[in-house]
Amino acid sequence: MRHSERGSFDRETANAILDAALLCHVGYALDGAPLVTPTLFWRDGERVFWHGSAASRALQTQTECEVCLTVSLLDGIVLARSAFNHSVNYRSVMLFGTARSVDSSGEKLAALEKFMERIARGRWGEVRQPTDSELKTTGVLWMDIREGAAKIRALPVGDKPADRDHPVWAGVVPVVTSLGEPEPAAELASDIELPGYLSEIRLS
Amino acid sequence: MRHSERGSFDRETANAILDAALLCHVGYALDGAPLVTPTLFWRDGERVFWHGSAASRALQTQTECEVCLTVSLLDGIVLARSAFNHSVNYRSVMLFGTARSVDSSGEKLAALEKFMERIARGRWGEVRQPTDSELKTTGVLWMDIREGAAKIRALPVGDKPADRDHPVWAGVVPVVTSLGEPEPAAELASDIELPGYLSEIRLS
Repeated sequence: MRHSERGSFDRETANAILDAALLCHVGYALDGAPLVTPTLFWRDGERVFWHGSAASRALQTQTECEVCLTVSLLDGIVLARSAFNHSVNYRSVMLFGTARSVDSSGEKLAALEKFMERIARGRWGEVRQPTDSELKTTGVLWMDIREGAAKIRALPVGDKPADRDHPVWAGVVPVVTSLGEPEPAAELASDIELPGYLSEIRLS
Repeated sequence: MRHSERGSFDRETANAILDAALLCHVGYALDGAPLVTPTLFWRDGERVFWHGSAASRALQTQTECEVCLTVSLLDGIVLARSAFNHSVNYRSVMLFGTARSVDSSGEKLAALEKFMERIARGRWGEVRQPTDSELKTTGVLWMDIREGAAKIRALPVGDKPADRDHPVWAGVVPVVTSLGEPEPAAELASDIELPGYLSEIRLS
């Protein structure tokens, strides 16, 4: 099955979906049992990265093991006249491969900078940088974007002609993910302004 | 590890998160390799259900096998003064167990009714009901809500006191999931009004 999916794997489509999402779900096995951990991720060229506490069971179990990293964005609820033709509009990518650990401090720092810049461009230069000890307790994993499957449904209602006169509302209800009003930290100095990048965080 | 997680498994917290979400990610193994499939799900009492084409590889592989069903809701991006203390607010549930198939037509129909009513209360009675053949080609799986872990972060910025004077904006940027303006099907009869339940779909 990997081959048939690889065959239809459109990297440009996949990259666009990966770049739109913040959250992924990493699947892996622990003593043969499946586990799915939600985590933030980011893309850098032909790799995706994710991070966590270096001591976390999830990261330790995933390292050098086969994983499936899935990204999905729910775009709309498709309400048809027939129960059977109800559906959702979505974009999703599944990536298959082996999770590798970023070991050198320099590479780890560069990866974390990419991560923050993906979320808030310009912020990395403003924040207090990680100490050596903070960097040591942070684990960063990556995998190649090589094998996978991208799927998109972005269509109107798909009722059969015979159902189109059934007297019920039909259509698509869009699902929208957006940013709320930023909530400043309680002790924030009053002369610190809201950075422009806050309104530009890409969520979907 | 299952035991320690079971120990801290608060069913009320888990149910509240399960009832807030539409989308889950089901992890399972195919020939020993992890797979994570995004799908809609619904809760009915002490079980969660999901569905798909009865012919789908995902559903067929999951049936009678161990799965991990994970639900996660991203609630906010936590921007700290220190790179290290950046975080997200979220709610998540991981459920562990064996996926079972709903076999009888009657139970399948009842499950699908619950599903539609979870999304749009009152709509099941309005839509064209499934035919026997549509019901046969629909697979419905379920698992017990018995073993799992619920996690929530709903906190402000967690900077250390020493970092609080660092001159950068800090706070939480909420992530909000909402419904967009419903888009009626192109051929919808002009006398069909927008149902009230459309604005009540719970997404998070």
